[in-house]
This record gives sequence, structure tokens and C-alpha cells, in this order.
Amino acid sequence: MPGLAEPIGRLIDALKLLPGIGQKSATRLAFHILKRPPEEAAALARAIQDARSRVRDCAQCGNFSEGETCPICADERRDRGTICVVEEAANLPAIERTGLYQGLYHVLGGALSPLRGIGPEELRVGRLVERIRAGGVREIILATSPNVEGEATAVFVAGIVKPLGARVTRIAQGLPVGSEIEFTDDMTLAKALESRREF
Amino acid sequence: MPGLAEPIGRLIDALKLLPGIGQKSATRLAFHILKRPPEEAAALARAIQDARSRVRDCAQCGNFSEGETCPICADERRDRGTICVVEEAANLPAIERTGLYQGLYHVLGGALSPLRGIGPEELRVGRLVERIRAGGVREIILATSPNVEGEATAVFVAGIVKPLGARVTRIAQGLPVGSEIEFTDDMTLAKALESRREF
Repeated sequence: MPGLAEPIGRLIDALKLLPGIGQKSATRLAFHILKRPPEEAAALARAIQDARSRVRDCAQCGNFSEGETCPICADERRDRGTICVVEEAANLPAIERTGLYQGLYHVLGGALSPLRGIGPEELRVGRLVERIRAGGVREIILATSPNVEGEATAVFVAGIVKPLGARVTRIAQGLPVGSEIEFTDDMTLAKALESRREF
Repeated sequence: MPGLAEPIGRLIDALKLLPGIGQKSATRLAFHILKRPPEEAAALARAIQDARSRVRDCAQCGNFSEGETCPICADERRDRGTICVVEEAANLPAIERTGLYQGLYHVLGGALSPLRGIGPEELRVGRLVERIRAGGVREIILATSPNVEGEATAVFVAGIVKPLGARVTRIAQGLPVGSEIEFTDDMTLAKALESRREF
């Protein structure tokens, strides 16, 4: 943009690479950073650098981790008999926030997607099989997304882990809490009817 | 958040200080940064650090600047006879994007706001008076926001610069391009009627 000092233009360009941040948002964020105390900008820069350089995949479950194993795998109070299978490490905080799940996780590292060239060999499934074979696993909860890729992935993983003996379950699909039937799409309503329970 | 490696939690907290970024957006941005190449994260961190440490106020107009004077004040092709007065340096790119303005700027550094404790002495007005007194200024365009604080600021600045002899104008208020009369608020419609022009 003409009239902008070079470091500002470069900051805007770097911010624009973030998801959901366009030219206008990036400009607003950049000007905000310029108006704040230098220590705050330095702390943000350091946090970005540290997170990217110090965080790696947990050797056990594939979650983001600072050490060899992530805080969840390392936590002795978690139930080692349940493994919740998710597509991405980014899905994990949402499940943790419910406060309902006390087991471990397994991060596949994606969902099957022929369009994006993600086949079975791209998913971290071998390590999941090893974990089940090591014994003590009673239940595998398939928590992939309820869309085409996520469903295909759930079917694929179930086909591999079911023969190993653990119980395999899938998170429920139905109407979101607080929604209205009138505005619910047909597919969701159909799933909610199919999956109805005794009242 | 439980289950998150410390550097990730710290990154989320730092991102949450940005405007319009809540817990969910910050988490999404943090996980995005973790999935991208380390060089991209390093470039973003460096851009933030550089922008904050290398950018200061232009000694002439108050715009963000890398050197003593900003690229606009330094540009010999800009019309030195017109000064557009804005509240914040962040307002300047919007005016530049119109491609219509060829003059210089003057950044007040805020708008009069008793509630936020911003009085006349907090605004960079003395420097504007000096610039006009130095001669050659034909027109002062008041481009403060069309809200209570911006209007009060425009009235205040006009009161000071009018006696100095330059023509003082105010950006127009009226219906936004592409809007519909039916959905326009009363105040805007009143302004649009008041400011009507020969057709």
C-alpha cells in the first residue's frame, strides 16, 4: 500500500497469511500492535516463535506436545482404557472443554480426502493399532467430523480397529443444543430421527 | 486450558490481546501457526517485532513512519497546499485507498472525549498550527469520524485553524453508496437531506 512504512506493510502481509484474516483485519491488527507498548508486541512475537520451535507431536497420541509425551498422555489420572480418535490436534481442546472426557486421545493427522490427496497411509493409524495391541483398551471413540471426509475416516478406522477386540463407538449426530427444528437442515434432522432415544 | 502445552497456552493468551480476537479465534490462529512451516512463524514474529521497534511518529504529520518523516510527507509529488486532518494514523490508509487525495495529512492522535479523558492538550494541534503558519496551506480538510467525538473534534480544530486564513472543509455525511433509503437511520437521512446538492 502506498504511504505505509515498509515494516508495517510487511507486518500486514505476514498477518494476512493467518486463517480468516484479510487485508482489512490485518491492517487493523497491525495498527493495534503499533499503538501498544513495545513489551506487548515483543511478548507476542516471542510466543509465536516459542510455540512453533518448542512444540512437537506427542510420540504416543500425536497431540501437540512440549516434551516427548503430551500433558494428557502423561497425566496418571486419565483413564487409559478409552481412546478418543480425532482428526487434528486442534479438535482436542473442544472435547477437553466439555469436561466430560477423562480418557486418552489419538490424533490421526487428517481425514481421508481423495481430493486433497490424503489416503490411508497419510493417517497415523499404525500407532493406534500398536496402542490397542499393547492391551488395556476397552473403548475407541471415533470423534472425526460428521462430514463426508470424517465419516469415511470413521468407517476406515473402525474397519481396522474392530477386529482387535475393543468396543468401537461414534459420537452422536443430531440437533445442536439451542437450535430450532424449523431452521435445521434435512440431513441433520434425518440423523436426529434415526438416532432417537427412549425418553 | 488443561491438556495444552505451555507455549501454546501462552501463544493463545498473547493473541487474545489483539482486537476482535477471543478465546476461540486465538486458539484457531495458534493451531494454524503450529501447523505451518517454522520459517513462516519466524517471519510473522520478526514482522511484529520489527514493526513495533522500527516504526515511530512522523515529526511532521504524526503518521507512522520508519524515518524522521513518513513516505507521504517525503513524497515531492504530493500537494503541499492541502492538509487532511484525521484522528488516528490508522485512518490514513482508508483515505489513501480512494486514490483521490493527493495532499498531505495531519494526525491528531485521537478525538476529544471527556469520557476517556482526552482533552484539547492530548491532541497534536500545536504542530498543525505551526505547519499552517509556515505558509503555503490553502485548505484544511477535517476528516474526523462523523460521530459525537469526531464532530466535537472537528469543531474544535476548525475554531483554531480558521483564524489562520486557510479554507476549512469537512468531509460529507450522507447515505453510503449502495445502501437503501428504507434501511437508513434517521440521523444519516437527515444529514443527506440537509447536504443535498444540485442535480
